[in-house]
Amino acid sequence: MEKQTMTPERRKSLILFSFFLFSFFSLIEPTKSSNPHFFSQSAPRFLGRFAHQKPETPLPKPLRYDTRYFTQVLDHFSFSDLPTFQQRYLISLDHWQGPMSPIFFYCGNEGDIAWFSENTGFVWEIAPRFGAMVVFAEHRYYGESMPYGNKENAYQNANSLSHLTTEQALADFSVLLTDLKRNLSAQDCPVVLFGGSYGGMLAAWMRLKYPHIAIGALASSAPILQFENIVPWQTFYNIVSNDFRRESVSCFEAIKDSWDAIETQGLRDDGLTLLSKKFHLCQSLNSTQELSDWLDDAYSYLAMVDYPYPSSFMMPLPGNPIKEVCRVIDGYPSGTNVLDRIFGGVSIYYNYTGAVDCFDLGYDPHGLSGWNWQACTEMVMPMSSSQESSMFPAYTFDYASYQNQCIQTYGVRPRPRWITTEFGGHYRYVVVCLSPYH
Amino acid sequence: MEKQTMTPERRKSLILFSFFLFSFFSLIEPTKSSNPHFFSQSAPRFLGRFAHQKPETPLPKPLRYDTRYFTQVLDHFSFSDLPTFQQRYLISLDHWQGPMSPIFFYCGNEGDIAWFSENTGFVWEIAPRFGAMVVFAEHRYYGESMPYGNKENAYQNANSLSHLTTEQALADFSVLLTDLKRNLSAQDCPVVLFGGSYGGMLAAWMRLKYPHIAIGALASSAPILQFENIVPWQTFYNIVSNDFRRESVSCFEAIKDSWDAIETQGLRDDGLTLLSKKFHLCQSLNSTQELSDWLDDAYSYLAMVDYPYPSSFMMPLPGNPIKEVCRVIDGYPSGTNVLDRIFGGVSIYYNYTGAVDCFDLGYDPHGLSGWNWQACTEMVMPMSSSQESSMFPAYTFDYASYQNQCIQTYGVRPRPRWITTEFGGHYRYVVVCLSPYH
Repeated sequence: MEKQTMTPERRKSLILFSFFLFSFFSLIEPTKSSNPHFFSQSAPRFLGRFAHQKPETPLPKPLRYDTRYFTQVLDHFSFSDLPTFQQRYLISLDHWQGPMSPIFFYCGNEGDIAWFSENTGFVWEIAPRFGAMVVFAEHRYYGESMPYGNKENAYQNANSLSHLTTEQALADFSVLLTDLKRNLSAQDCPVVLFGGSYGGMLAAWMRLKYPHIAIGALASSAPILQFENIVPWQTFYNIVSNDFRRESVSCFEAIKDSWDAIETQGLRDDGLTLLSKKFHLCQSLNSTQELSDWLDDAYSYLAMVDYPYPSSFMMPLPGNPIKEVCRVIDGYPSGTNVLDRIFGGVSIYYNYTGAVDCFDLGYDPHGLSGWNWQACTEMVMPMSSSQESSMFPAYTFDYASYQNQCIQTYGVRPRPRWITTEFGGHYRYVVVCLSPYH
Repeated sequence: MEKQTMTPERRKSLILFSFFLFSFFSLIEPTKSSNPHFFSQSAPRFLGRFAHQKPETPLPKPLRYDTRYFTQVLDHFSFSDLPTFQQRYLISLDHWQGPMSPIFFYCGNEGDIAWFSENTGFVWEIAPRFGAMVVFAEHRYYGESMPYGNKENAYQNANSLSHLTTEQALADFSVLLTDLKRNLSAQDCPVVLFGGSYGGMLAAWMRLKYPHIAIGALASSAPILQFENIVPWQTFYNIVSNDFRRESVSCFEAIKDSWDAIETQGLRDDGLTLLSKKFHLCQSLNSTQELSDWLDDAYSYLAMVDYPYPSSFMMPLPGNPIKEVCRVIDGYPSGTNVLDRIFGGVSIYYNYTGAVDCFDLGYDPHGLSGWNWQACTEMVMPMSSSQESSMFPAYTFDYASYQNQCIQTYGVRPRPRWITTEFGGHYRYVVVCLSPYH
């Protein structure tokens, strides 16, 4: 299998968040669009069932908040006759000192807000010190904040999904905050926004667009410049690759070699069956691409959650998980097949507790699939993989293919230049703070 | 006719622009909603046919620009499958000095953009001194920039009108500017926005929302604070009234007395016919309210265009037109009927050249009627009229009635708090510059 043959197979457009959430958007060959795994959401099965590692650093106390719902219009920017929907938000007034004290407002990402609140210890820990009200607002079309009554209706087609956009989400937050402040006699309370990953992008953009509502934003790992040609398209995969290479060059090389081994194996008559078995998949593979995406996801997520302490945000993981993965990959006896090494390595990510019997490639426990729509509309974030400096298969982002896939999948045409028009990027930058804590 | 009887008849919500455009939005009693003049757009007939006064100050040379069209999406903030439309813009590169020179961008108001360009001499006059490109962009749903092919389709119902909003208009401007700069290799050219009245509001808000696109805005007579309770609701009518009172207390009193006289006359069996005749109306009045609105419009417009030199923006007028109106009102022999005085006075506004045979209350030569929709959706600008300090009939803005009228007329519910949520107002103010020149 030649690299050049493999290259066009990879259609990865990732949003990459070295701190927080992150969603993966796989664009496979147009000819494979009938593949049910076209958009792979390779979160592992049984996430909630893992036995969590006892962390070495103390976790925040159990969170205390009220869960409330707020009626939002579906379209803030037009007056079509559309139904309203209930936006969920979590609110804690336990430490709030009243009318002059701050409001810490977390801008919900592309997933269940309770999950984000559990994994954003920073906000909860500092709130008492500032006498702050804490609000975690869920993003429309995620978690329980579904238009049209439920997820099935909301995700039915391009029309029902059409109002899943960042601008609408920011307007939701602004309307909610304005209403909350009025009802709580908190008009004079300064609002500080928080967010990580896509939520960080929202926090940064909301500070830019709604300066009368928020005095500041802490935007962690917010790739607001990952659009058009603002940053080199290879940057993300280079960074992930370097995270592995700095732990171990042989580990890096094993991963880099594994893609061809997978392709070669897949070309055999029973290749896909053997690969499915080797990697303990619950269902048989339809293509090697599915497996490659699943592995790609693991390495990328590992780089994003490569905390120096045990954690369990996406997965229960040891501290310094990349070091652990490479220790396993490198630890096999000389001569061990590269695929065995790789499987051992990614098992650190997908099965650290050892409780998983088989892996379900399509499992999406946190309801992240809406990101595929967002990636096909506004969030066109070009990413390539360098032949030289990346451990991933070489790939050059191709907008035409990307667009075709979105048209085929959703019947929607992306607007690749919209985000920089709406929020800037080329000529004006928002200061983004990186938080070392979560 | 008692004042208190008259008071609830007045349902004026004006957008008031002492420099530029301005649109009048009449909300009459719910019981009168079948009245075809429910939304009075009391621009006079034959505007274009008036013999223009020779101005005492030199007008700019004939304007030289190209008329171009740009394909815009109808909804920038969602991905519904909607048709695009052609946005008209006027562009002059005559004086542009190239890649580092500025772009002067006029944010089109609620009317024909060619008309605004003809009445914005300031931009044209300063452009050569700055080596600036000049762009006048038309606002969606006005002039030739009609979605759905033509005005009839665009204005068919609430659904077709639903994308007539300020946020969409600002996004149009931003997309157009971004594209223009790219195509003209003008990425580094600083953009300065201009606008008067509603266009000034757009300029100010665009500077706030798109700081990466425009480095500044000259927002003339832009009532961005005329929302909710930011400024006292009586302010506008008090200012207009004072403009008359400072010229002549007896003029002010005559106008203040005239409303009762009209109502009294209207109560007679043939009262409406007599009033229609006395005021030289082309069609018979259906109510005294129609006449009152027409007069109200004249006084308010006069205050907005009370330039010290002859002008012909809305109407051909002498310099200091309020002084002229009051001179006529005061100049009749003692004992002259107040309605004769008033008719003589407003004829200065509606018929300065003397060429008008009769007045058509519904004439809308500049296509301003879309403002009624905007006033019924986002542009809820409360205005009241004081019994004590205004020469207009006393009236207190009542949101419930206002909303009912909008629901009855368009089937749409206004969002009276949306503008301050989206653009601020209570807690953060944009510096607005007043230009003494037009």
